[in-house]
Amino acid sequence: MEAAQARLDALAKPPGSLGKLERLALRLAATQGRTDPRTKPRRLVIFAGDHGVVAEGVGLWPSAVTGAMMRLMRAGRSSASALGRVAGADFLLVDAGTCTEEMPPGPGFLDARIARGTASFAQGPAMTAAQFDAGWALGERIATEAAEAGMAVLALGEMGIGNTTAAAALGALLTGATPEAMVGPGAGASPESLARKHAVVAAGLARARAETDPRAAIAAICGHEIAALAGCIAGCARHRITVVLDGLIVGAAALVAQRLDPTALDTAIAAHVGAEPGHARMLAALRLEPFLDWGLRLGEGSGAALLLPLLDAAAALLTEVATLEEVMGG
Amino acid sequence: MEAAQARLDALAKPPGSLGKLERLALRLAATQGRTDPRTKPRRLVIFAGDHGVVAEGVGLWPSAVTGAMMRLMRAGRSSASALGRVAGADFLLVDAGTCTEEMPPGPGFLDARIARGTASFAQGPAMTAAQFDAGWALGERIATEAAEAGMAVLALGEMGIGNTTAAAALGALLTGATPEAMVGPGAGASPESLARKHAVVAAGLARARAETDPRAAIAAICGHEIAALAGCIAGCARHRITVVLDGLIVGAAALVAQRLDPTALDTAIAAHVGAEPGHARMLAALRLEPFLDWGLRLGEGSGAALLLPLLDAAAALLTEVATLEEVMGG
Repeated sequence: MEAAQARLDALAKPPGSLGKLERLALRLAATQGRTDPRTKPRRLVIFAGDHGVVAEGVGLWPSAVTGAMMRLMRAGRSSASALGRVAGADFLLVDAGTCTEEMPPGPGFLDARIARGTASFAQGPAMTAAQFDAGWALGERIATEAAEAGMAVLALGEMGIGNTTAAAALGALLTGATPEAMVGPGAGASPESLARKHAVVAAGLARARAETDPRAAIAAICGHEIAALAGCIAGCARHRITVVLDGLIVGAAALVAQRLDPTALDTAIAAHVGAEPGHARMLAALRLEPFLDWGLRLGEGSGAALLLPLLDAAAALLTEVATLEEVMGG
Repeated sequence: MEAAQARLDALAKPPGSLGKLERLALRLAATQGRTDPRTKPRRLVIFAGDHGVVAEGVGLWPSAVTGAMMRLMRAGRSSASALGRVAGADFLLVDAGTCTEEMPPGPGFLDARIARGTASFAQGPAMTAAQFDAGWALGERIATEAAEAGMAVLALGEMGIGNTTAAAALGALLTGATPEAMVGPGAGASPESLARKHAVVAAGLARARAETDPRAAIAAICGHEIAALAGCIAGCARHRITVVLDGLIVGAAALVAQRLDPTALDTAIAAHVGAEPGHARMLAALRLEPFLDWGLRLGEGSGAALLLPLLDAAAALLTEVATLEEVMGG
């Protein structure tokens, strides 16, 4: 960090004159522990899961949409897969626990379901602690495989009908915020479903808070894709892979990772602060500065994919720009 | 615009869920008048000029720095040239009116000086109206050459010690703001030089306002690189080249272009709102929404270069993402 700051201050430009780009360069250098960070090769990884809470009427769409979206992603024609492709990232979709029918295997897809969706946390625990551990281990494995493939950067996203509700409950549990502060319209909810969402989140929160073990509390309201995201974030930290976080749901996963492993965020960068009201609060608790403020609320890794070329710019600042001393000497 | 909006609304995602990226896609489509806008090939063009007002003690550095910075840019090792390169843009530095010694010709460099710097507008007019016209024509020629080379996008920047003072005076003249509202610390000024800058801008503004012809008023306080930037922006509009504007100085040039040619901004996109207090005011007068808010104050086209990969993302949204109808039909 200090070496990177010294390098930035020595460049042939007024110190600080590139504002947030300099802070991004510093953070990027810190995640890799080097003043010449790499930004390629990189991979956009989407973890998918379905949520039993959808049965409570909290979402706009049925879980059946999950399968259609996964097929679209595999075809490279979802918003996030297109954004990842133009940013030069390869693509991996990991089914951590959806209810969709069996899909044919193929490149860029891994069916590693822990279960067929979670149970509704309004009625009982979303998953068992053992299932939570299996999801975490799945995410760690994805990070390890990325390290073996030489990845410098992972961008993380998610797909799962109902997962803004689980993320809001986790956000309330892990930041201490009220359900009302954490719940927003998600990917397009009506006022009625918003009120239902408040009640459902409050019920889940009460269930989680009744648990004494933090893993059990988290498992009570978690999603399979969120558990896997949390393990993947922690795995990236262990392998010194820069991990770019997308929006609310990945933010909830980062809170989970932080709660269970204090070093889990050592290589994390928050791509953006989204339109969901709870997201800024999560980022404050994560002590991560977001770099884009574009009112995004799609998820799927779209915001994380958008930040990737800006990482290239930040790295170039550290590695390709002359210092004032070089200019004056030459 | 309407066709592009219809396309965005039809995509397989909640309408509006990609926030500012959707507005960037709309603006990009509008600049090219097509729903499948191109973003490559593209060129970063830096216009350089020196300013007589430096003699009034308004800047931190002497004009001699201009030559060193130009050599650094030509070597590809300035901040902006590095950012342009990682964004896949080719590079052209145009000397519109610096005081530097003769430089060897070479690729990516054009010595097209209208004069060796401007006169100090605290003492008299910065340039003649004929010189202003010659600068404008130079910028138009650069746009025409870019069109002939098939460029889809030009990103515009500038280099010139003292040009934040000229830009502030032009901003005050063309938006009606006071010198105090327009003057900031520039690329790093002391409180003393800030006070001098206020006084110098006020003097220039009085001189410009005494002119009845708008061209003469602008010429009284303009810079050669600013005149060329204004002509280049207007030229891009005529050739339907998307033109990405950098910070305060390019903003002043856009105000000049807008004042003299009502259609000059038809293909302009504001890359960012910078740290200089006058810049947001200029953008409001230009009726352009800035896309990044990163506290940039370097200039040199750095902010415009940063936006380039985000244009690719915006274009991909329009051209590579499936519509809901395609998903449901397939």
